[in-house]
Amino acid sequence: MLGVVIPLEDSKNKQASVKPLVDLTKADMERVNQLILSKAGSDVQMIPEVANHLISSGGKRLRPMLTLASASMFGFTGDAHVKLATSVEFMHTATLLHDDVVDESDLRRGKSTARMIWGNQASVLVGDFLLGQAFRMMVDVGSLEALDVLSTAASVIAEGEVLQLSVAKNMETTEDDYLSVIRAKTAALFAAAAEVGPIVAKTDKASRNALKSYGMNLGLAFQLVDDVLDYGGKAADLGKNVGDDFREGKITLPVILSYRRGTADERSFWREAIEGGKSDDHNLEKALGLITRYGGLSDTIARAQHYGTIARDALAPLPQSPWKAALLEVIDFCIERVS
Amino acid sequence: MLGVVIPLEDSKNKQASVKPLVDLTKADMERVNQLILSKAGSDVQMIPEVANHLISSGGKRLRPMLTLASASMFGFTGDAHVKLATSVEFMHTATLLHDDVVDESDLRRGKSTARMIWGNQASVLVGDFLLGQAFRMMVDVGSLEALDVLSTAASVIAEGEVLQLSVAKNMETTEDDYLSVIRAKTAALFAAAAEVGPIVAKTDKASRNALKSYGMNLGLAFQLVDDVLDYGGKAADLGKNVGDDFREGKITLPVILSYRRGTADERSFWREAIEGGKSDDHNLEKALGLITRYGGLSDTIARAQHYGTIARDALAPLPQSPWKAALLEVIDFCIERVS
Repeated sequence: MLGVVIPLEDSKNKQASVKPLVDLTKADMERVNQLILSKAGSDVQMIPEVANHLISSGGKRLRPMLTLASASMFGFTGDAHVKLATSVEFMHTATLLHDDVVDESDLRRGKSTARMIWGNQASVLVGDFLLGQAFRMMVDVGSLEALDVLSTAASVIAEGEVLQLSVAKNMETTEDDYLSVIRAKTAALFAAAAEVGPIVAKTDKASRNALKSYGMNLGLAFQLVDDVLDYGGKAADLGKNVGDDFREGKITLPVILSYRRGTADERSFWREAIEGGKSDDHNLEKALGLITRYGGLSDTIARAQHYGTIARDALAPLPQSPWKAALLEVIDFCIERVS
Repeated sequence: MLGVVIPLEDSKNKQASVKPLVDLTKADMERVNQLILSKAGSDVQMIPEVANHLISSGGKRLRPMLTLASASMFGFTGDAHVKLATSVEFMHTATLLHDDVVDESDLRRGKSTARMIWGNQASVLVGDFLLGQAFRMMVDVGSLEALDVLSTAASVIAEGEVLQLSVAKNMETTEDDYLSVIRAKTAALFAAAAEVGPIVAKTDKASRNALKSYGMNLGLAFQLVDDVLDYGGKAADLGKNVGDDFREGKITLPVILSYRRGTADERSFWREAIEGGKSDDHNLEKALGLITRYGGLSDTIARAQHYGTIARDALAPLPQSPWKAALLEVIDFCIERVS
């Protein structure tokens, strides 16, 4: 199997885990899961079928846990954070359904995508339905501030996806271009998920900004590590195949760094592979060699650590609590996934 | 050219027109058009390109005019109805973008569809962006009641589209099944467009229900007449080709009536044509013959008139005004399009 083993310089004795966050949000996540099942229901049989296929596909549900934790850490109890967490997960699920159509993906987490089973049509429309249901739940909560944050995120995510289309297969994409894409398509929802917690908890503006910044930078780190995983690490454990991004001609930071640091000949190779679609296994092996030579993965991880540090500092002024500790550990967990 | 000429029994001397509504809403529609251009804008160049292609394609913008009129008729002045009217138009545009992907349509109103020019990917994602922008504008208005009505409509529309997928190419679809589809996919947005006017005008519950019922039944009549136009009338003027629905295997009321009223042999023909895809010009001609024999078009128009009457009665208790007269004339205009 192709792949690069990535040495982590500052590996710790204890592996960071998402478990403290899972444990703290367990009771509320059960309510989220109930609400997911209920709001993905419809008399139109195909809707729960398609929705549940993706919903039950074993994601970590990190985003709704962020919403729950970021409300609970300020002492919030009630329903609003459960409804908003479910909205966030529905927005994410709708995006995945539409992404698989846009990317013509066959597999997600090792399972056939909804579009392979029910077709592109159902994937587009059930995505629209889940987005509609997400907005209904937000409206039900009744917080115009939370609605503002989440509806803005919905626009920004779609804008990021279109931006990604326009930079697709263009090897001149800079790291900045790429950061704009992942900031919009991934980090914006992490940021919104973490910001609506303090909003419903009616906490101060500084705490709200802290959680927003935490979510945004955690999202950037998360996506960068995801891009690294595609070229090695534990990709297979996650139901991903090594080199999927390469075969799809997706431009991610490991490729951008290796391209810009390479020789003229190597740049020609990248253009042929990514822009010209010459992405067979032989070329993937060559690409992995170049990525290793130019530190494409280790430096992408270094970038992820940079954003992880910003996320950590964002939470620093907040008082110590098990919630804060759990959120901080998630940063390390997201980054250490590659080790 | 194939097509059926439909005799209207109660043709009047004066053709009903949308002009009074256009004239009354002219100043506000200019604000809507400005807002459309501004909110379809993005630094991501492809977004305004795709959005403006569809937005400038010459639709009548009936839905935003309903919102403007249904607020203005209660004396409302301000910005809210302009923003909500723009939201309604964006929701409609997003639906069209996704519909063209789902139906694999090449043409809309005689122009290439966005998906033929920019691809399915851009059509899905720009649709998502416009939906996000629609919600942002609604949030900006700040009325939770209007948000409730429009977010519910967004869910119902998507649900109706999925329902349409599941009844597609099934000749056993009943008139009731079909009505459920068009109630959700078309009439729900007309109803919401007309209901949010009285909501922002803070009028009484009875008036709000009157406008909602007017919109719902106008939407049903509008869609039924659209289905008739596909088999004749002035279809060509609208940039539609006679028989598009037939060729796509779409089940509409003229087909449902002709199928159920036909002989066993004729029902076999319909199944082969619609379910089996034998929809060449020869079969289209035969289908038009059967539709004429069984009154498929005239009885669909009769149904449209039935809903038109309900829409008219819904407004009856409201005081006379140029606004009310214009809205009533739109009912006749929608139905008389076939003559």
